[in-house]
Amino acid sequence: MSESSLQELVAALPPGVVTTEAATIENYRHDWSRDPSAGTPIAVVRATDADQVQATVRWAAEHKVPIVPRGAGSGLSGGSSAVDGGIVLSLERMRKIEIDTDSRVAVVEPGLLNAEVKAAAAEHGLWYPPDPSSYEICSIGGNIATNAGGLCCVKYGVTTDYVLGLDLVLADGTAITLGGKRVKDSAGLSLLKLFVGSEGTLGIVTRAILRLIPAQPPRSTIVGTFPTVVAAAEAVVDIGRTLRPSMLELMDQTSINAVEDYRPMGLDRDAAAMLIAQSDAPEGAREAEIAIIEQAFTKAAAMDVFLTHDADEGELFVAGRRACFDALDARGALLLEDVGVPVPVLPKLVEGIVAIAAKHQVEIPVVAHAGDGNTHPNVVYNAAEEGARDRALIAFYEVMDLAIKLGGTITGEHGVGRAKRRALPDQLGPDVMALTRKIKNALDPDGILNPGAILD
Amino acid sequence: MSESSLQELVAALPPGVVTTEAATIENYRHDWSRDPSAGTPIAVVRATDADQVQATVRWAAEHKVPIVPRGAGSGLSGGSSAVDGGIVLSLERMRKIEIDTDSRVAVVEPGLLNAEVKAAAAEHGLWYPPDPSSYEICSIGGNIATNAGGLCCVKYGVTTDYVLGLDLVLADGTAITLGGKRVKDSAGLSLLKLFVGSEGTLGIVTRAILRLIPAQPPRSTIVGTFPTVVAAAEAVVDIGRTLRPSMLELMDQTSINAVEDYRPMGLDRDAAAMLIAQSDAPEGAREAEIAIIEQAFTKAAAMDVFLTHDADEGELFVAGRRACFDALDARGALLLEDVGVPVPVLPKLVEGIVAIAAKHQVEIPVVAHAGDGNTHPNVVYNAAEEGARDRALIAFYEVMDLAIKLGGTITGEHGVGRAKRRALPDQLGPDVMALTRKIKNALDPDGILNPGAILD
Repeated sequence: MSESSLQELVAALPPGVVTTEAATIENYRHDWSRDPSAGTPIAVVRATDADQVQATVRWAAEHKVPIVPRGAGSGLSGGSSAVDGGIVLSLERMRKIEIDTDSRVAVVEPGLLNAEVKAAAAEHGLWYPPDPSSYEICSIGGNIATNAGGLCCVKYGVTTDYVLGLDLVLADGTAITLGGKRVKDSAGLSLLKLFVGSEGTLGIVTRAILRLIPAQPPRSTIVGTFPTVVAAAEAVVDIGRTLRPSMLELMDQTSINAVEDYRPMGLDRDAAAMLIAQSDAPEGAREAEIAIIEQAFTKAAAMDVFLTHDADEGELFVAGRRACFDALDARGALLLEDVGVPVPVLPKLVEGIVAIAAKHQVEIPVVAHAGDGNTHPNVVYNAAEEGARDRALIAFYEVMDLAIKLGGTITGEHGVGRAKRRALPDQLGPDVMALTRKIKNALDPDGILNPGAILD
Repeated sequence: MSESSLQELVAALPPGVVTTEAATIENYRHDWSRDPSAGTPIAVVRATDADQVQATVRWAAEHKVPIVPRGAGSGLSGGSSAVDGGIVLSLERMRKIEIDTDSRVAVVEPGLLNAEVKAAAAEHGLWYPPDPSSYEICSIGGNIATNAGGLCCVKYGVTTDYVLGLDLVLADGTAITLGGKRVKDSAGLSLLKLFVGSEGTLGIVTRAILRLIPAQPPRSTIVGTFPTVVAAAEAVVDIGRTLRPSMLELMDQTSINAVEDYRPMGLDRDAAAMLIAQSDAPEGAREAEIAIIEQAFTKAAAMDVFLTHDADEGELFVAGRRACFDALDARGALLLEDVGVPVPVLPKLVEGIVAIAAKHQVEIPVVAHAGDGNTHPNVVYNAAEEGARDRALIAFYEVMDLAIKLGGTITGEHGVGRAKRRALPDQLGPDVMALTRKIKNALDPDGILNPGAILD
């Protein structure tokens, strides 16, 4: 990569789009996984429209320069860790949005935050459901790249369920459109779905058409505290047999205490686990759902069960749950897990995590989108302590191994990125890895799109 | 393909699995699209387990023999039309099913009928929603191959939304497993979703894990008749702005009369169109939904609005709707459309279809899953009349052109198969066709899996 080649790109784009300034480059090296092995790019391109994305990819294809696409940089798996000698292509400035109320869709550019999409939809009485805990700071492009989930997904599904159309730039610079405002489409291969969750390794999203649904009804919130985390997980399994609440979150004792330390809100520090459930069933059906949840809590020996129909009061608990990441982040260095298992084996997973933590003398607080079996057991360690990171890493991989053994996945919603790449073959096996590689090679033969994410 | 090579396959499989008998071969040449250009296979393989599927594909890969996979043969796009010199690989004998109530999934083999999956789930108070009109005679494997929809999809989504896992045999005979009983999974590329709707061109499904949900609540049925088909379509758009009913079907006058001729049930033969809506909202919310539907009907100048809370009475109308295909089939030769458009332009689509029918002097009765913009305007013609098929074919392609111009799709749920292959490039354009071809070539370089379906 010669200096003069880079000047071609600078010249091809409007002033201010390409930056080679050291401080800016430093700011774009990491996502929130803070991968210590992140590289140093030769430039950051902050595109403001699809044409600039296309020009950048064409240039990169010609010169075989790696491109790491990036939204808000809030990814937790190193999917946006920069690579040496590459370009970081930021989509954060592409922020157009249009709500089509007749078709009930949002037409959005990738740089918009999830919360901004929700807000724009809400102005028309509509709702974009997927809600990662980070919804106020994560971009919709990143959500599409990772097939992001969130708290309401137990009832409302994940990002892929809401993507009706995508504009993409492929590895050779070709711009394509997949899908559209139609809700059903069986024409040709399901390419649209293939690109969702592909973590920028197959193409770069420049526009998305997202399905919206009517605004969520008011919610009632049921909070229970439990004597053991396994008891809480058993309540989750019990509830799942009969209904899908609109939220069913778990926090274990360490998480509860981390949140109390970080933002005191009167949570029960003695509880081994807490479940936060919500029902948004229409009045009439609401009482029955609440009764099922309360009964499951009681059957699992809940120490305390609290019910509120007040939205603000309910939101306090949910905000506490959402604060877990920041609260744990304040506690030490983190290795962020995102393992998911079939709901019935959730108790075995949380039990096994306790054992792994004890064995390696690390703390592994668990927060979870428990209702769909997706947990975030985050390995906390003291980066200054010798050997601590090594022990943490061993625990990190053992948790993923355990999830795989239980019929689960190493990532339910964060994506593989670079942080979990080593574990992916253990889950998928050699034949599915080979298939993945075939598709990657077919679509990006020179490997310029996000090299190192998902695949070596 | 030498006779001795075929004997290798016969020898490799248990007696009765491979048939070369002419009458049987004739029975497996066509699906319900009755493609006159269907070829004649050299043998029919009726596998009873995944190992036999794998052995067949390995043999076909070695000898480069085309394989046309086939479920119940109820496909409407020629996706299972046999090809000369190839094998028809029928999955109809693979019929195992297991319901896992704790995980709320059905683990099914592809030969099971959709109705049988529903029935098995219902024994446990669970429900598999996707419901093609042909649900009593179509196989779940075919549903997965075409990403089938149905009547309840307006509220409950299509097949891909319910597929959590697939066992597949790839073109080289490799057997793989994708997904599992977990409900969320972002590990690696979304290969699972790529195979759903791939019409047997990328791999052959030998087992599927399907998500089940709690049994559907009782439904109320609202039937309206309208002075014009456009008025009925406008009522659909109006309803779609506010809610997703659990069913919203349209029949135009010719369809109504065809059903009355075929199975008299007292429908209003003078109505230009009829809408059949259902609400399965919980009591309390039900009345509000019904009111919205009734108001939309009235606003669109409905001539008659009928409401029933009686399930059997409601089912009579739905059965009438489901009988449309058989009723039209009795009326003449058919070219089966499956075009879908964004819901707001549904009135333009039905208006345009009326014009196309008039222009080419063919009958194009329309039935539709109107709530999600997916229509079946079926071109009826007299096969004995000279020039009629040619006129019908012109109309057939003009309807697809119109759908594409309106931002729609040539197929919402039937798949492209062979019958709509010529129109696919018009919808997708050369770049997306090239991308499709790249993936096909990467996964099936010799083109042995269902050649001629989707792609040339």
